[in-house]
Amino acid sequence: MSVRSDVARMTAYTLELRAAEVKLNQNESPFDFPPELKQQVLDRVAKRPWNIYPDFESISLRTALANAYGFEPDNILVGNGSNELLAAAIGAFVGPGTPVVFPRPTFTLYEKLVTIAGGLPVPIEFDPDSGLLPLDAMLNAISDYPGAIVIVCSPNNPTGGVLPRGGLEKLLSTGATVLFDRAYGDFADDQLPPLDDRLVTFSTFSKAWGLAALRVGWLASTAANCREIRKVKLPYSLNIISEAIAEIALENRDVRDRNVTRIAGERQRVTAALRDVASITVFPTSANFVTFRTARPCKEVFEELYARGILVRDVSAYPRLANCLRVSIGSAAQNDRFLEALRAVTGDQLPVTASGDRQPATGNPS
Amino acid sequence: MSVRSDVARMTAYTLELRAAEVKLNQNESPFDFPPELKQQVLDRVAKRPWNIYPDFESISLRTALANAYGFEPDNILVGNGSNELLAAAIGAFVGPGTPVVFPRPTFTLYEKLVTIAGGLPVPIEFDPDSGLLPLDAMLNAISDYPGAIVIVCSPNNPTGGVLPRGGLEKLLSTGATVLFDRAYGDFADDQLPPLDDRLVTFSTFSKAWGLAALRVGWLASTAANCREIRKVKLPYSLNIISEAIAEIALENRDVRDRNVTRIAGERQRVTAALRDVASITVFPTSANFVTFRTARPCKEVFEELYARGILVRDVSAYPRLANCLRVSIGSAAQNDRFLEALRAVTGDQLPVTASGDRQPATGNPS
Repeated sequence: MSVRSDVARMTAYTLELRAAEVKLNQNESPFDFPPELKQQVLDRVAKRPWNIYPDFESISLRTALANAYGFEPDNILVGNGSNELLAAAIGAFVGPGTPVVFPRPTFTLYEKLVTIAGGLPVPIEFDPDSGLLPLDAMLNAISDYPGAIVIVCSPNNPTGGVLPRGGLEKLLSTGATVLFDRAYGDFADDQLPPLDDRLVTFSTFSKAWGLAALRVGWLASTAANCREIRKVKLPYSLNIISEAIAEIALENRDVRDRNVTRIAGERQRVTAALRDVASITVFPTSANFVTFRTARPCKEVFEELYARGILVRDVSAYPRLANCLRVSIGSAAQNDRFLEALRAVTGDQLPVTASGDRQPATGNPS
Repeated sequence: MSVRSDVARMTAYTLELRAAEVKLNQNESPFDFPPELKQQVLDRVAKRPWNIYPDFESISLRTALANAYGFEPDNILVGNGSNELLAAAIGAFVGPGTPVVFPRPTFTLYEKLVTIAGGLPVPIEFDPDSGLLPLDAMLNAISDYPGAIVIVCSPNNPTGGVLPRGGLEKLLSTGATVLFDRAYGDFADDQLPPLDDRLVTFSTFSKAWGLAALRVGWLASTAANCREIRKVKLPYSLNIISEAIAEIALENRDVRDRNVTRIAGERQRVTAALRDVASITVFPTSANFVTFRTARPCKEVFEELYARGILVRDVSAYPRLANCLRVSIGSAAQNDRFLEALRAVTGDQLPVTASGDRQPATGNPS
């Protein structure tokens, strides 16, 4: 075996597999795709030949995305989840030694892909308490590392915070190329930024659309950037079923809007309720999850929640996230189960509100 | 835009999009997945939640593959087409400057992925006429380039030839790590090689199984190699529908066996008929396609075939393949249409045989 030494030193991206009654560990939507739309997808797919490769250019889906968001098809690439497109963009922009500035903690895939590309990771560590990403420190690092590429996820996973207002524009004004991961953008109610020669924006159908099982992502940039990234991307990465699903989703944008409205409402309710739990610290979130620090060792809290049927994510191995857990915003019933279990585990004895009611912010003894 | 200079110099992998009555340009199977199995897949998928990520470890499909081929699940990785796994393996084994020995002409993706990884491509050029890959020259190159990785596709795309008997064992005996692409292996009637610490074997459901639209590939190697490659592979690359399809395919292996038998029979008939066309040279093939050199400029032959509704692949831009065209083995009716058109285009006036009959090898005036 002659594996690369830098790969041998890497640790694998792993996820402990656990079944649970209430699964709130992967930032998934609690709402399945509507059965009648599933049936539309399956009817469309049954008629197509499965022995013939997908359209090489995915022109139909790219056109649908362009129409939905006001771009041209040449401004769009589609892939097998936005991860694949992030990998392709990093492959196109990051060579041996290229400095790459990104906030940390963030989605670990970025640093892994930069390492594989031989780039120089320049992580900007920050505390999640303010709910803001470390814009000024990032701007300083960009000027310290000429030719730096920037990767930023806003709202950020796993902290939930966002760039300060105008932050993306400030990053772009440095002249650095910015890879902007908008996986959770729909939950922050921000808009897809306009095209810019220095900007590549990544979006996904996995979160707000609730289609994590199907693996469809897309990026938007200038036609010239798309041409270069496409050289690095594998051909035929989207199968015909995923294409059909994304197209039918775009014909039914109310599905996403309804999901986002419901999740944002529940997020408000859950975060308010969490702020009333004395023994945890809640970080501001604009995503479909909320991260909090526990006074007790978080692994104990994690296991005690799990014993009550609730699976959350232990994110305490991330820098600056000691004793932190992340919980996805689920359905009202799932969130009630989680809040009830958390109160039991932490010993908090606050009254349980009915689903959908706002938990009053008063009464927080901390 | 600050794209890597080596990426800027690359040309994109492109495929001219043309509709045709008889599509024989992508080595696709002519046989669609049986309707009753399609329905099984769709029934299974409709019941699953689309908002939940696929199983992180794809354990169900990996177990099915392990059972089908006599491995353990730890010896298997699955991906979104074997291309994705090739990219991951090259990412794991090829770093800046790593020499990579491969025959040329071959599947262009290998050289592209090696370039992206910063490796040193060591192409071994060969003429396709013998139907054999250049084993001795490859062995010499391996000894000239210590630490070389080998990539070999047998049967080779786009020439159709194979490694000489015992060739894989000779390559492995050098101590080099061999990435062995068996995309067309089922058509050559060879067996999946046994596990070896220096060997990674890539297989696909796109060709012999006739599932090109669904993008499922897999690799087999030692558990240690799989662990390292998995570090580089993106997580969640296989969606739940592709997983379901591959699992149902493995429960119905007669589908593949029937496809292979029919395609091998037609291959024999088509190559025999082609050998009777005076103005072309046919290269020996063990794949589901056949490549031939035309006496006339091949672009003219390509266009005249296309005017008759037949789309083949112009492979003349590959090294050593000047004036060469590649045609997939289609159904008997498609092959008849192709042969008839080719005879008309080349001016050959041989009698047309009935579908399924072997064309007599006599009467070849060349």
